[in-house]
Amino acid sequence: MAEIKVTKCSTLTGWRYREREKVLWRRGGRAELKHGHKLCLLCSVIGNFFFGVNLYVGPRGLWKWKWSSDEVHIQGLSWSGRAAVEAELAAAEACSGHGRAFLDGVVVDGRPICECNTCYGGPDCSLFLPSCAADADRGDPLFLEPFWKQHAESSAVLVAGWHRMSYSFGDQTTFLSRELESLLRKLHSLVGNAITDGKYIMFGAGSTQLLNAAVHALSPHNSSLPATVAASIPYFALYQMQTEFFNSADYSFQGDTMQWKNTTNTTGDIIEFVTAPNNPDGQLNEAVLHGPNVKTIHDRAYYWPHFTGIPSPADDDLSIFTISKLTGHAGSRFGWALIRNEEVYKRMNTYLQLNTMGVSRDTQLRALKLLKVLVKDGGREIFEFGYKTMSKRWDKLRKTLSMSTRFSLQKIPPENCTFFQKVRDPTPAFMAAYAWVRCEREEDRNCIEILKAAKILGRGGSVFHDNNRYARLSLIRSDDDFALLISRLGRLVSQEEGAKIM
Amino acid sequence: MAEIKVTKCSTLTGWRYREREKVLWRRGGRAELKHGHKLCLLCSVIGNFFFGVNLYVGPRGLWKWKWSSDEVHIQGLSWSGRAAVEAELAAAEACSGHGRAFLDGVVVDGRPICECNTCYGGPDCSLFLPSCAADADRGDPLFLEPFWKQHAESSAVLVAGWHRMSYSFGDQTTFLSRELESLLRKLHSLVGNAITDGKYIMFGAGSTQLLNAAVHALSPHNSSLPATVAASIPYFALYQMQTEFFNSADYSFQGDTMQWKNTTNTTGDIIEFVTAPNNPDGQLNEAVLHGPNVKTIHDRAYYWPHFTGIPSPADDDLSIFTISKLTGHAGSRFGWALIRNEEVYKRMNTYLQLNTMGVSRDTQLRALKLLKVLVKDGGREIFEFGYKTMSKRWDKLRKTLSMSTRFSLQKIPPENCTFFQKVRDPTPAFMAAYAWVRCEREEDRNCIEILKAAKILGRGGSVFHDNNRYARLSLIRSDDDFALLISRLGRLVSQEEGAKIM
Repeated sequence: MAEIKVTKCSTLTGWRYREREKVLWRRGGRAELKHGHKLCLLCSVIGNFFFGVNLYVGPRGLWKWKWSSDEVHIQGLSWSGRAAVEAELAAAEACSGHGRAFLDGVVVDGRPICECNTCYGGPDCSLFLPSCAADADRGDPLFLEPFWKQHAESSAVLVAGWHRMSYSFGDQTTFLSRELESLLRKLHSLVGNAITDGKYIMFGAGSTQLLNAAVHALSPHNSSLPATVAASIPYFALYQMQTEFFNSADYSFQGDTMQWKNTTNTTGDIIEFVTAPNNPDGQLNEAVLHGPNVKTIHDRAYYWPHFTGIPSPADDDLSIFTISKLTGHAGSRFGWALIRNEEVYKRMNTYLQLNTMGVSRDTQLRALKLLKVLVKDGGREIFEFGYKTMSKRWDKLRKTLSMSTRFSLQKIPPENCTFFQKVRDPTPAFMAAYAWVRCEREEDRNCIEILKAAKILGRGGSVFHDNNRYARLSLIRSDDDFALLISRLGRLVSQEEGAKIM
Repeated sequence: MAEIKVTKCSTLTGWRYREREKVLWRRGGRAELKHGHKLCLLCSVIGNFFFGVNLYVGPRGLWKWKWSSDEVHIQGLSWSGRAAVEAELAAAEACSGHGRAFLDGVVVDGRPICECNTCYGGPDCSLFLPSCAADADRGDPLFLEPFWKQHAESSAVLVAGWHRMSYSFGDQTTFLSRELESLLRKLHSLVGNAITDGKYIMFGAGSTQLLNAAVHALSPHNSSLPATVAASIPYFALYQMQTEFFNSADYSFQGDTMQWKNTTNTTGDIIEFVTAPNNPDGQLNEAVLHGPNVKTIHDRAYYWPHFTGIPSPADDDLSIFTISKLTGHAGSRFGWALIRNEEVYKRMNTYLQLNTMGVSRDTQLRALKLLKVLVKDGGREIFEFGYKTMSKRWDKLRKTLSMSTRFSLQKIPPENCTFFQKVRDPTPAFMAAYAWVRCEREEDRNCIEILKAAKILGRGGSVFHDNNRYARLSLIRSDDDFALLISRLGRLVSQEEGAKIM
């Protein structure tokens, strides 16, 4: 393909030079009348003509671009310029630093409106809503949004109208992008958090879809004895909700692994969810159940250097990852599974085909572009950004609760991080996506209610089938959410009677 | 927001003018030495200086852009130019008109390779593979790909690296784009194929995900009597495959509706799939089962003016649509359901949340951009393009089989199309996405095998639980696939003994 030459200059220079050029035509004219130097005029005219023409008399002239205009032309581009300008105009909405405007946002006066962070409002998100509750509930990974704004050029992707309309990729057989698959293998080897050799890779709409696909693939079929599905308390609520809601005859959720620890020699299959690091408490869990009839699904959503140390690469039979907690793109719904057994892989593939016919090709294209940014520098930049952000947040959180006798935080043994090649802060410092807070007072049996009364939204222990003395606070949300959380916690602690003296 | 001024000119002119300008500097120099006319030189120098500078001495000079280069700057853009250029370079691969290169294609020598249409090969897809079988199997809707190449500018979308990272949209509660929802309502009212007033809209990963979500939502829960799921032969195989594979205790597939026609007063619920137009035979089916315990899922994937007449807007309790057969974007995995009952909507919403946490926000953004192109002119352009393409294909197919006594085509009564405001070609002309071919010879009991022997791939009647005397041939694939299908059918017919004389 021939090279394309494109030039850089401000969008305004073309206009300025157009004005200046008019002046110079007049000068040229006066010069001729006064001195009549023909050759001189010739030089001037030729020079002005060639450059003047190029400056603003293109095939369709100089366009003044307006939102919703039909006429957009960018020097150096043919059909893609309009989409690029639309995206830059949406991105140009500052929203006071407390929100952002999206290309597909609700349009008012021909422009997408600002979508504000929690507790901010007004047309430009500049209005703080003092009575609003600090949101530390959902694991919305917006702490990485600033990273992507800093890497706007390398992470942007333009989707052509005819991009991948077919059901299958070029090889006519799969729903998976081979380029994306090889990039995922490269990423794992760079980060050192999983061994992909000898493993199949399956894509899903986030880890959410893959979790149930895995349960389905590991269950017996047309057996009178459905598989028992279990997880260790505290566990992520979705495991149970999914299994119960889809109500398959092939498997049934039976709660905590502990009750099955000494009965794994039963004839029925047992499927254990092992979440490492664990959601909610960040512990690097290991399988509790073992035996010939035990199958394990490792949920590795948080096994990345910005949430935990990576003592060694995982080499699970079946592990599940997601970009939601890797790049922060929860909205894109992209996850992948590493699968050792071919039969399990084939069953998961059938599940994906009959459930959604694979993952949106648009999403696969975007995931490819995002992961290329990570792989380019071996992940150093994003994980350092993420690690620094999370460290600062943990420092603030620990400092805020250090004087409290009412609230305590989970303890996690520091793990050596082979990625950063150093042990992270000495004990009791640790990293995790969530704070697993315990209300210590005898009377504070419902911790989430205590926090709620102080205008802090989190998730109660019972959601994770644990004691309501515990509450999960999300630390991976936006800077605004975290700042408000710390301020509300600080006020709560300061109101404690018998708080430790500094 | 301030207006942005952007200019249009060829990517090459900058370079040409740069060369010409060098010449003019020399001319200017000679002029001075020969005549010493200072003012003249001044004119020339000033003129050349102002425009010369603007042409190629921008803040970072003139960049020679190469694939995989880090330096890309487009006049008028800041961070989006690189993505735009990457997309245009991929699109610039002609692939001999028998394929296309994609941004996420396998990269060789730093560029994505051509992905060729079936039966074409070689690095540029110029190599026809004569022994290759004509592919009329899958319903890959590539007949619309040329339409989107013709509408490259209006259908392109640029996704910023930080686009919709959150799980939820601005309102913090939903997984659905409100803009997309209102655009879908507008589209249905423009086309006149469905009434959306008083209906809820649910998005899914294509109709595939919504079909099972609907079955799940319409089934009783924790009942000893699972719902009976049925469809009228010939029916789309996915209905049965899905229902059986997920093996829910709440419903079970029980085959043809006919066997339940006189037993709808049983206590158990019955869920009927009504596909209109039907896949495979294109008939505008209506519900066969009626009664207080009967619930109906209308699959309306093909209820668009390029496949059928639209006698009246559908007003079903639950109908399912998909862009796969509307815009041809099967790979994007986007569909939607119109739901009258609030409880059913809520259960489908829960299904979507627990299955995939909604539809990829990237996909919703792209669907919005594509549907805006349709809505802009009331759908006239795309449906006329699609209708003309399908009409021509049907004319060729009918002409090819007109002399045959061995193969016959399905008959569909012509429907008045309220969209085109005219009755389509008089009987026996009709439109459908698929040809439902019948092998008439006594000995041709397995029609698909007869076609296969003639190097034509289709789908046998038994796949649709019908007689193997029938075979489905897809007519919505690429022009290359259709041309080869016609040529192979023509040869087959010409070999018939006792073929009708023209």
